[in-house]
Amino acid sequence: MSTYTTTVPVRFRDVDAMGHVNNAVYATYLEQARTEYFRDVLDADLSSVSTVLASLSISFRRPVHLEDDSVDVEIDVTEIGESSVPMTYELRTDDGVVAEAESVQVAVDETGSSRPMPEAYRTAIESYHGL
Amino acid sequence: MSTYTTTVPVRFRDVDAMGHVNNAVYATYLEQARTEYFRDVLDADLSSVSTVLASLSISFRRPVHLEDDSVDVEIDVTEIGESSVPMTYELRTDDGVVAEAESVQVAVDETGSSRPMPEAYRTAIESYHGL
Amino acid sequence: MSTYTTTVPVRFRDVDAMGHVNNAVYATYLEQARTEYFRDVLDADLSSVSTVLASLSISFRRPVHLEDDSVDVEIDVTEIGESSVPMTYELRTDDGVVAEAESVQVAVDETGSSRPMPEAYRTAIESYHGL
Amino acid sequence: MSTYTTTVPVRFRDVDAMGHVNNAVYATYLEQARTEYFRDVLDADLSSVSTVLASLSISFRRPVHLEDDSVDVEIDVTEIGESSVPMTYELRTDDGVVAEAESVQVAVDETGSSRPMPEAYRTAIESYHGL
Repeated sequence: MSTYTTTVPVRFRDVDAMGHVNNAVYATYLEQARTEYFRDVLDADLSSVSTVLASLSISFRRPVHLEDDSVDVEIDVTEIGESSVPMTYELRTDDGVVAEAESVQVAVDETGSSRPMPEAYRTAIESYHGL
Repeated sequence: MSTYTTTVPVRFRDVDAMGHVNNAVYATYLEQARTEYFRDVLDADLSSVSTVLASLSISFRRPVHLEDDSVDVEIDVTEIGESSVPMTYELRTDDGVVAEAESVQVAVDETGSSRPMPEAYRTAIESYHGL
Repeated sequence: MSTYTTTVPVRFRDVDAMGHVNNAVYATYLEQARTEYFRDVLDADLSSVSTVLASLSISFRRPVHLEDDSVDVEIDVTEIGESSVPMTYELRTDDGVVAEAESVQVAVDETGSSRPMPEAYRTAIESYHGL
Repeated sequence: MSTYTTTVPVRFRDVDAMGHVNNAVYATYLEQARTEYFRDVLDADLSSVSTVLASLSISFRRPVHLEDDSVDVEIDVTEIGESSVPMTYELRTDDGVVAEAESVQVAVDETGSSRPMPEAYRTAIESYHGL
């Protein structure tokens, strides 16, 4: 039902020699949004070893500049796999959508092998998004 | 025919709180490889405004650690579009493949609109990869 | 009379393998505070070529963690040189002072040679800090 | 007697909107040099919790550009304190000195309190630098 949105302020350091936010920094914005999502929705710490990022893809729609001040990152989850959570993202400034992205987060055990998504995570995500 | 390969040394700063190279840094490794590809194959500067990154996707196969010292990034191009160049990447350490990736670079004019790939770039890329 | 203070949110990416905000990121926090100071006090863009950073020194008092959420950076200027502005900084979290720092910014011309501080900057800084 | 020198390749991502290597990245170059110094001279891992950075100061002499390709970082130690190691650095490109820096590294116990420098470290440093 609902999506999760957070705002990431743009730093001078995010901008590269081309004068706009560097492409790798979009991945940092997505990670920062996930960090806050994990904290707010799952009450969990992203640096816990229980999940890893399996894949990430970003479509860049328009450049972001320092003057944009901040980027809103919206996260949505529409289904949960046995051991993975696919997330979709929309990044926006006041001028509209600047990028869209997808990631897959996989639950892993201490050896790095995938394992079923912890039930508490599954329940919290389903509840938050009304799945 | 041939692929382009460069080596990016891993820095302490590339590693995050989880003890391995941060996911956004893979995008930086890819960008660094593109930078050197542009310089070596196209004799061009990546920060020239003539192309922009339209999309990027990364599949993470296994974590990279500081002890891995460096990551080899192999770039391949198998076809060139009217105004875009799709690139595929394989990232390897001594232990094998750590990630695969794809990007699309688009030629743009000064207003940011796409335009035909400059003929000199097209020729150089086709020649390098034996297309 | 008055000091300038801004707040920089801590990102997951700011934290290194030791589990706390990386030392180089303190320099980024200082730069971000200068960026906002230039915008708010001087109505100027830090990436304008009119000033360069000549020196920077940081004393680290205690580690900053992701859980600290943000760092307050306070900037003070107590005197202005012919062509330079020395700035002192105090960085604080809710737990108190985490670092102190100093920088010297020098006004330069287009060739990179120092030149007298523009009168408009001098006046704005003196007025803001009651010098 | 001898100084320690390592070479850090410049990345596209190191350059900021002003077109030269960002000031915070100099701190990363110094850290990378310390990482390799710890590994080569002390046979130790910088991310071990046994030492922390207490202070850092950098004098910027001239800008570094992507075209400089790499920066040589020379580390010297001329004395060792009871619980601290002051290091001095010179950063050079092919065009000469680009920055000078100093840092102080302090040996700490698990609670973060300073403690005497481990004898093995002291011996290795003194031996390397002919102190």
